[in-house]
Amino acid sequence: MKKLNIIKIGGNIIDDELQLEEFLYALATLNEPFILVHGGGKLATDLATDLNIPQEMIDGRRVTNAQTLKIATMVYAGYINKNIVALLQKHKRNSIGLSGADANLIQTTKRNPEPIDFGFVGDVKPDGINIAFLKQLLQLGITPVISAITHDGNGQLLNTNADSIANTIAVSLSRTFDTQLIYCFEKNGVLYHPEDENSVIPVLDWNMFQTLKSEGVISKGMLPKLENCFQALEQKVGKIGIINAKNISGFINNKTHEGTSIQ
Amino acid sequence: MKKLNIIKIGGNIIDDELQLEEFLYALATLNEPFILVHGGGKLATDLATDLNIPQEMIDGRRVTNAQTLKIATMVYAGYINKNIVALLQKHKRNSIGLSGADANLIQTTKRNPEPIDFGFVGDVKPDGINIAFLKQLLQLGITPVISAITHDGNGQLLNTNADSIANTIAVSLSRTFDTQLIYCFEKNGVLYHPEDENSVIPVLDWNMFQTLKSEGVISKGMLPKLENCFQALEQKVGKIGIINAKNISGFINNKTHEGTSIQ
Repeated sequence: MKKLNIIKIGGNIIDDELQLEEFLYALATLNEPFILVHGGGKLATDLATDLNIPQEMIDGRRVTNAQTLKIATMVYAGYINKNIVALLQKHKRNSIGLSGADANLIQTTKRNPEPIDFGFVGDVKPDGINIAFLKQLLQLGITPVISAITHDGNGQLLNTNADSIANTIAVSLSRTFDTQLIYCFEKNGVLYHPEDENSVIPVLDWNMFQTLKSEGVISKGMLPKLENCFQALEQKVGKIGIINAKNISGFINNKTHEGTSIQ
Repeated sequence: MKKLNIIKIGGNIIDDELQLEEFLYALATLNEPFILVHGGGKLATDLATDLNIPQEMIDGRRVTNAQTLKIATMVYAGYINKNIVALLQKHKRNSIGLSGADANLIQTTKRNPEPIDFGFVGDVKPDGINIAFLKQLLQLGITPVISAITHDGNGQLLNTNADSIANTIAVSLSRTFDTQLIYCFEKNGVLYHPEDENSVIPVLDWNMFQTLKSEGVISKGMLPKLENCFQALEQKVGKIGIINAKNISGFINNKTHEGTSIQ
């Protein structure tokens, strides 16, 4: 099977113009095909603040009301997505920016408002991914750059978790590609001690994950990300990494062993 | 040659949610292939006002500084583009929203800052259009929906006139398709008396245009639009119409003769 990388880039890198351009230059010059999924970063929050639109949080998670959805659509599917594509084009990587509505790429279901109403949020499943279109783009040599705005097929855009999109796309494509799923962010990997960048866990398997979870070493935002990673491994995703965005070339080219490998 | 419609939709229709949805429903149910190009409308100006970003105008034309470009990118390539696509998908028309950076669809050149510096504005030429990709999408049965944000190939997004994009795409595709270029807006066509919606000029040829221009009947914004139309006719665009968005189905299906035909 042909190799395919599904790369997720997190908000902190997107917020930093210089880091983002360096990361995109590294991606543009990769010899392997990839799909890029990007999150939002602070830009959407900043715009909401500038427009005096209050952001409601429940259990530490943002509620997407109509105004927040509008901002997310403008920032993620517009500003960030198009600037990423323009920078990849600059470095001669032919790419295309897509939301889930485009070519019916990702159809999601609005989350049940019970018990908590998170508003215009869509949950993604493997059968909602338009695999055929992704394959057509890759065959044409065009790199998909996907923002985390999806649609319900009935005219409604929905805000969606970018990690889940990357994960679900990797699972969906693992029937036809030798997939590698890589989460890139500003830290060096999954850390034993969150404040110590040198405490990277190089290899993490299911048993070790259970132990570290019970010891409280892994907690908060990293928990659902890792749960999803192990599910993806079960569903035939070939290799999963959680790495510093700076190390993307080395990781993909198997030249460095930095970051955390989920096995 | 196969028929292809290049349809431009203007700002006043985009601003009106109900009119826009009616228009998109009419488009979605067309039997013929089309490419949709959309402008911006008041939304970008409203957002600039809300953010206290002053809009500089020179000779009645907007200057696109960095902040205005960011707003245009968010509103045109993000909010408007993705909502149009979601509504077309709702009505089972598989479509894809694109800026000029996506798949290197429209590469433009930043306008010379002399004699007037309009800022981040790109001028479009036929050799800047990625005709091959448009053909690939049409062959896949996917309708392109194009926002007026382009790129210079060097990482810079540029604001571009949507009329010019529609015109240039029609010219570029006229070598391989039997093209029809249709400008849709809120008026009934080119009018003898701008205030009288019943004074539509049904057919306008070059000689009549020259006469009406010299008499001052046609002026202001309509002049460059019509100049471009006559140039497009010379460059083998098959048929050109300037019509009320409400009449799009009738015009394309040759059932009504409302609006203005440029011949």
